[in-house]
Amino acid sequence: MNFTASQIANLVAGTVEGNADAEVYKLSKIEEGTKGSLSFLANPKYTPFIYDTNATITLVSDSFVAEKPYTTTLVRVSDPYEAFSMLLRHYNDITSKPEYSIAASALVSKDAVVPDHVFIGDFALVGAKSVIGNDVTIHSQVYIGQDVTIGDNTIIHSGARILNGSSIGCNCVIHNNAVIGADGFGWAPNDKGSYDKVPQTGNVVLGDFVDVGANTTIDRATLGSTKIGNGVKLDNLIQIGHNVEVGDHTVIAAQTGIAGSTKIGSYCQIGGQVGISGHLIIGNRVGIQAKSGILKNIKDDTKVMGYPAFDYKAFNKSYVHFRNLNEHIKDLQSLKKKLDHE
Amino acid sequence: MNFTASQIANLVAGTVEGNADAEVYKLSKIEEGTKGSLSFLANPKYTPFIYDTNATITLVSDSFVAEKPYTTTLVRVSDPYEAFSMLLRHYNDITSKPEYSIAASALVSKDAVVPDHVFIGDFALVGAKSVIGNDVTIHSQVYIGQDVTIGDNTIIHSGARILNGSSIGCNCVIHNNAVIGADGFGWAPNDKGSYDKVPQTGNVVLGDFVDVGANTTIDRATLGSTKIGNGVKLDNLIQIGHNVEVGDHTVIAAQTGIAGSTKIGSYCQIGGQVGISGHLIIGNRVGIQAKSGILKNIKDDTKVMGYPAFDYKAFNKSYVHFRNLNEHIKDLQSLKKKLDHE
Amino acid sequence: MNFTASQIANLVAGTVEGNADAEVYKLSKIEEGTKGSLSFLANPKYTPFIYDTNATITLVSDSFVAEKPYTTTLVRVSDPYEAFSMLLRHYNDITSKPEYSIAASALVSKDAVVPDHVFIGDFALVGAKSVIGNDVTIHSQVYIGQDVTIGDNTIIHSGARILNGSSIGCNCVIHNNAVIGADGFGWAPNDKGSYDKVPQTGNVVLGDFVDVGANTTIDRATLGSTKIGNGVKLDNLIQIGHNVEVGDHTVIAAQTGIAGSTKIGSYCQIGGQVGISGHLIIGNRVGIQAKSGILKNIKDDTKVMGYPAFDYKAFNKSYVHFRNLNEHIKDLQSLKKKLDHE
Repeated sequence: MNFTASQIANLVAGTVEGNADAEVYKLSKIEEGTKGSLSFLANPKYTPFIYDTNATITLVSDSFVAEKPYTTTLVRVSDPYEAFSMLLRHYNDITSKPEYSIAASALVSKDAVVPDHVFIGDFALVGAKSVIGNDVTIHSQVYIGQDVTIGDNTIIHSGARILNGSSIGCNCVIHNNAVIGADGFGWAPNDKGSYDKVPQTGNVVLGDFVDVGANTTIDRATLGSTKIGNGVKLDNLIQIGHNVEVGDHTVIAAQTGIAGSTKIGSYCQIGGQVGISGHLIIGNRVGIQAKSGILKNIKDDTKVMGYPAFDYKAFNKSYVHFRNLNEHIKDLQSLKKKLDHE
Repeated sequence: MNFTASQIANLVAGTVEGNADAEVYKLSKIEEGTKGSLSFLANPKYTPFIYDTNATITLVSDSFVAEKPYTTTLVRVSDPYEAFSMLLRHYNDITSKPEYSIAASALVSKDAVVPDHVFIGDFALVGAKSVIGNDVTIHSQVYIGQDVTIGDNTIIHSGARILNGSSIGCNCVIHNNAVIGADGFGWAPNDKGSYDKVPQTGNVVLGDFVDVGANTTIDRATLGSTKIGNGVKLDNLIQIGHNVEVGDHTVIAAQTGIAGSTKIGSYCQIGGQVGISGHLIIGNRVGIQAKSGILKNIKDDTKVMGYPAFDYKAFNKSYVHFRNLNEHIKDLQSLKKKLDHE
Repeated sequence: MNFTASQIANLVAGTVEGNADAEVYKLSKIEEGTKGSLSFLANPKYTPFIYDTNATITLVSDSFVAEKPYTTTLVRVSDPYEAFSMLLRHYNDITSKPEYSIAASALVSKDAVVPDHVFIGDFALVGAKSVIGNDVTIHSQVYIGQDVTIGDNTIIHSGARILNGSSIGCNCVIHNNAVIGADGFGWAPNDKGSYDKVPQTGNVVLGDFVDVGANTTIDRATLGSTKIGNGVKLDNLIQIGHNVEVGDHTVIAAQTGIAGSTKIGSYCQIGGQVGISGHLIIGNRVGIQAKSGILKNIKDDTKVMGYPAFDYKAFNKSYVHFRNLNEHIKDLQSLKKKLDHE
């Protein structure tokens, strides 16, 4: 999709300086600008690049004064970074949503409820009694089981599996090969030393504006629901156990795992590769440093680190001493010797 | 699927108290009971909920004496928890197994052996010379390569990939997007500083009653077989390297990784996010705490923690001191001062 | 596929001793040899097995002198291990590449460029404007989006997802259910305490001879490209964040995660379950021990361990003291008592 400098100036309420018919079809950093790309200059540190850039169009500040010749067409705006971000979102909106259609190779159950305004890609499946919202995008090779609800405007990427009974809110994005609603890891040890399955008959409920990363897994509840609140953002390769609850607007980085029945509050920030034991209660606005392991409940507004995790600042104090432990122990041993010789 | 109170009483050898025709179609916790749900009261702590629950039917103990009015229909049994668990398993059995059929869109090689009593879903593939057991369920979009054996009664969920030569036992469950039999990570450094591939020509062999979690990966052997014993339960997002062997009834929690050629004994309990180096021997009944890293062999009946891991109790003693290290080092420094001044 | 002893002798420039027409169709270790398998004897430790092996053919050294009877047909070569490795590679080449064909059920866009010499499996998709190289193998159920480039001789396994705009080099192998080019985890906190999406409009670029493990995820760049250099080997379940760059011939073990915008040098060896923070610079030939967490830049030729990671040898010294911390603290306390009593 091509845009001219004058079309872009229109979108961002800017003014063209140069060739108003110059056309771009992609976005780039100013130092990586090539023919056909749109770039921007916001940080003064990058000003030297504007004289060399091959970007066809560059967004610059109203106050920019050139000190050397340049070849790029300028679009002047009050805030180039903001204008570029706005164009990014615009570009993303028009490129990420395919046109309404249901592929001939998709198989949609007659007993599913599917509105006119949806996209369903090739080899996608929608099971019986599932209800799909307006403007939903179901990409190719997706599996939607039975009794699944998908809210308006949600996007489900290729290879994602949404299992029976799952409920997905509006404006969610489920990335590729994510699995929502698989059986939890419920095993009751029996007297033969092996394990009997605890059937997992609940489901998974996602709020609105939830992002689920690629290859992330969210297990169905044993009974009731595994619940992911509104605005929660889950990165790639995360494991969410059965009956876990994650509060609104909590963000979790890649490869973190949360064991069964733990409840996490709202507005938490949880780093990557964190592990959280089962049946815990984590408060609101809790910060957990990457790679920490949580074995106890955590109060609101606490920041922790380590495994087992404790107060973030205390951990770092202890760790400084750990790094120097060889010297400390030498000191200890020489004190010991001194006293023994006295 | 609906059940009446009298049908349920029949299944659990109980007696109805209330409307014998009351119908339920789902299961719930007593505190979350809604119209149409079956619940149970086992823990006395939850007794107050029975007077408010909207569950249509509730399993209660023979000895339960109501102290207030309630609306739910009772089914009295000797052990409500056991009865509910039995119903859970029954419910699970009838809902998790679709009726025998092979989808029109599935592609099954003419050279595969497939009995009448199987389910094969849409867009599923079964390759040449593969042999599928009785009562096997192969869900939609599954990939079964060539020369694969699947034992009776095994369930393979949507998106799982079972690669050439794999052998899966009876009564196994392979969850969504799991990958069994991909090439292991075999690289021989060459004299240019880069790596030559070591071809991986072996396979993966799973025993009976093995569970493989969603997005878990089990690599094929270089030569011979990567072996997962009977009754082994693997949670989600686990990595099992080439030529690894896992003994019977060992349980491994999510996101754990086991490097190539390591042998793990039977009846072990391995926590989540554990890492185990290659070419190690881990004994029987070994317990490994979550997030531990194993760099040495471990003897039978040992419990370890930490990275590198050592005795569980010793780790915890050391860690208590680590938490207080700042105070200990202050003590050390003041002793040092004292002695220097003497 | 069957090979006779004389065919094998031909391939490895060896001489047959025994039945030149003996046929094998698989490879085995000598101690696990069965009828129809080809084995080898390189390590003298394994010599006793040759008298019992059921392998039909065994590669042995020219200098091997039997001390007892045996039944296997010998093929004598100067270096049995090297000869066996060569046969492994040969076997792998002929078994891993299906014959050129495009499955009837595959959907290839009319606007894609696809040469004659390719394999495209069942239910695979190739999107508009994508360009597929010669001798490329695209297995069943693969998703190739739009504007994707795949270099000559690359293999993409079942269930892998290659999203819009990705560029894959020559001789790469993308394993099952890997996801290349999904949206990165870009979220800008807003003043309501929730998060606005930062559109991810860049792509992923892989060099030549890159291996991407099963269920590994590589996010597209926000702008520009996430770059994986030539000869990079990524194991299973790895997470590579947006705008990350990995230098040539770096090897990364399973379940490691690299956060956004970090640049990693060439010829590094990174263990499993490592976590690396965002916006860091890791030098060339850096070694990072498994499970380490990296919070700072690392210089060339450094080996680190721990979380936060520091010098490998220093970490191990500190850790020895950590293991004995209980004894050290007892010493400290008894010194304290002594001094207090003086």
